[in-house]
Amino acid sequence: MDRIGLLGFGSWGTALAVLLSSKGYPVDIFVRNKEKAEKAEKIRENKEYLPGVPLNDLISLSVDKEKVVRDKDILIFAVPTQKFREALLSSVEYVSDHAVIVNVAKGIEDGSLLLPSQIFDQSGLTNPFVALSGPSHAEEVGKAMPTGVVAASEDLEAAERIRDLFMTDRFRVYTNDDIRGVELGGALKNIMALGAGISDGIGFGDNAKAAMITRGLAEMSRLGKIMGAKPETFAGLSGLGDLVVTCTSHHSRNWRCGNLMGKGVSPEEAMKKIGMVVEGVYTCEAAYMLAEKMDVDMPITKGIYSCLKGEVSPHDAIYELMTRDPKFELFGE
Amino acid sequence: MDRIGLLGFGSWGTALAVLLSSKGYPVDIFVRNKEKAEKAEKIRENKEYLPGVPLNDLISLSVDKEKVVRDKDILIFAVPTQKFREALLSSVEYVSDHAVIVNVAKGIEDGSLLLPSQIFDQSGLTNPFVALSGPSHAEEVGKAMPTGVVAASEDLEAAERIRDLFMTDRFRVYTNDDIRGVELGGALKNIMALGAGISDGIGFGDNAKAAMITRGLAEMSRLGKIMGAKPETFAGLSGLGDLVVTCTSHHSRNWRCGNLMGKGVSPEEAMKKIGMVVEGVYTCEAAYMLAEKMDVDMPITKGIYSCLKGEVSPHDAIYELMTRDPKFELFGE
Repeated sequence: MDRIGLLGFGSWGTALAVLLSSKGYPVDIFVRNKEKAEKAEKIRENKEYLPGVPLNDLISLSVDKEKVVRDKDILIFAVPTQKFREALLSSVEYVSDHAVIVNVAKGIEDGSLLLPSQIFDQSGLTNPFVALSGPSHAEEVGKAMPTGVVAASEDLEAAERIRDLFMTDRFRVYTNDDIRGVELGGALKNIMALGAGISDGIGFGDNAKAAMITRGLAEMSRLGKIMGAKPETFAGLSGLGDLVVTCTSHHSRNWRCGNLMGKGVSPEEAMKKIGMVVEGVYTCEAAYMLAEKMDVDMPITKGIYSCLKGEVSPHDAIYELMTRDPKFELFGE
Repeated sequence: MDRIGLLGFGSWGTALAVLLSSKGYPVDIFVRNKEKAEKAEKIRENKEYLPGVPLNDLISLSVDKEKVVRDKDILIFAVPTQKFREALLSSVEYVSDHAVIVNVAKGIEDGSLLLPSQIFDQSGLTNPFVALSGPSHAEEVGKAMPTGVVAASEDLEAAERIRDLFMTDRFRVYTNDDIRGVELGGALKNIMALGAGISDGIGFGDNAKAAMITRGLAEMSRLGKIMGAKPETFAGLSGLGDLVVTCTSHHSRNWRCGNLMGKGVSPEEAMKKIGMVVEGVYTCEAAYMLAEKMDVDMPITKGIYSCLKGEVSPHDAIYELMTRDPKFELFGE
């Protein structure tokens, strides 16, 4: 039976540990904060991030990174993308040669504009690397509600191994060999969630939001293609599926931030009100820069970027999108 | 200036007439029921189907079909798909040689399993035929809220003409030459709306619904491909866009019917409670037959069909979908 280490004790990492332990796998979780680890160890629950879901006896918490990482067959990173590089580099020396590395966080690294798999490529490790992504609210997975995700890797055998590891009759895992496309879908969807929030905040309806989701997916896919991803990956769970969940859920921080902006709140004030990191704001800037660098037409991303910079009001940005030259569907705009 | 005739006085036909008249086009609408026509003519409103939206003076209502159809440059059909054949055939003798025919209803004809453009092909008319489709709640278009749709035709010039006819700064129209794909997207999405309702009715969450929308679009696109449509059309407004609106709106009759079924109400009882035609029920049967005939894998459609026939409970149907053999994303299941 595979020995599993997991880094990160947020809602998603916890939900996945609960899932794996329910299949009989022991899971060692690294928790940075000692007090937090001890409390959760005692009450057998991650009260802050996944309340109401018991941690069974196969889950053990530890503040000793070496212990969690060493001699593992599967090593899962469940830390925010902006912290992935640090978490990875501080683990490198303990990683077993044969371990499969799995990353479950979505996003693009600030500054470097790199995806997690590209950060991994810089680590010097040659282990197989798998991204797990898709429409998956942690709370629902914690409650064993039906969910479908994608395990993606250039090493399809590794992806299949991770698929079999996680698969249950409530958690369906597909494989995909286009890790770039899978990672990009999970990251870029947050921009469109901001846009959906803006549209709803202005008071526009379902038609406008559906159009934004559709045209948004088209421009995500355009950027992906230039970056070596397969356009069809964006039609899958990690693209379309995750996009739909994020744009239609009012729990999303990105949607909430956009919604405030649509109601006339300034971007700075909106972010302050949310009080937590609004991933889409950083992703939008990164995608804007990538689009400029690679000369890809991304009108929605550009419009939202202009709103975030305060160069144009949300209302005017949408008006501008609606009055562009008419185009042939999909192959034009 | 184009002379426009429109058949059908439901919410969508009325919203489109209001849009065109706001651009300065006179629109003659055929209304079957004399009393209804006279009432609406008097109060300048379609109180039953599009309340709160005034009909301006350029809209005239008539019970004289010949008057509405004859000498028109554009003829718009806005009747339910099951009534399209009759409405078309009873108009044929009056249609001008140069008229562009536009159909705005979605669906597959019962029995014949034909799409509106295929019904049109049997009419003997050789006029250009355009389908207008996409995510477009009539109430929102009536209130001039931003909306994006597709004008599709094998005759791209005709599609462009219809695009220019309808385009405003609030109603964005794209063109597409894949009318088959555009029509199929608009029809098949109702099956998935039933499925989304079932999933919500059982008490499943956003993850399950997003997975169903994503895998549903994949199987819609598979059937489309076999029927000569382009798979990419399903990623556009008339596919994905309309699918998202219909599956996430609780106003949809299809969603409501599925929702009742998910809560344990029998299909017959659920349809009775809705009290109006539940288009998705007929479309599901038609798609099931098409899938059998053409040997296309459509597991969600089949599952919903089995529920509708009472052969399996909604819960078991979903369980069966979740426990199929694991597959490579998109190219397998």
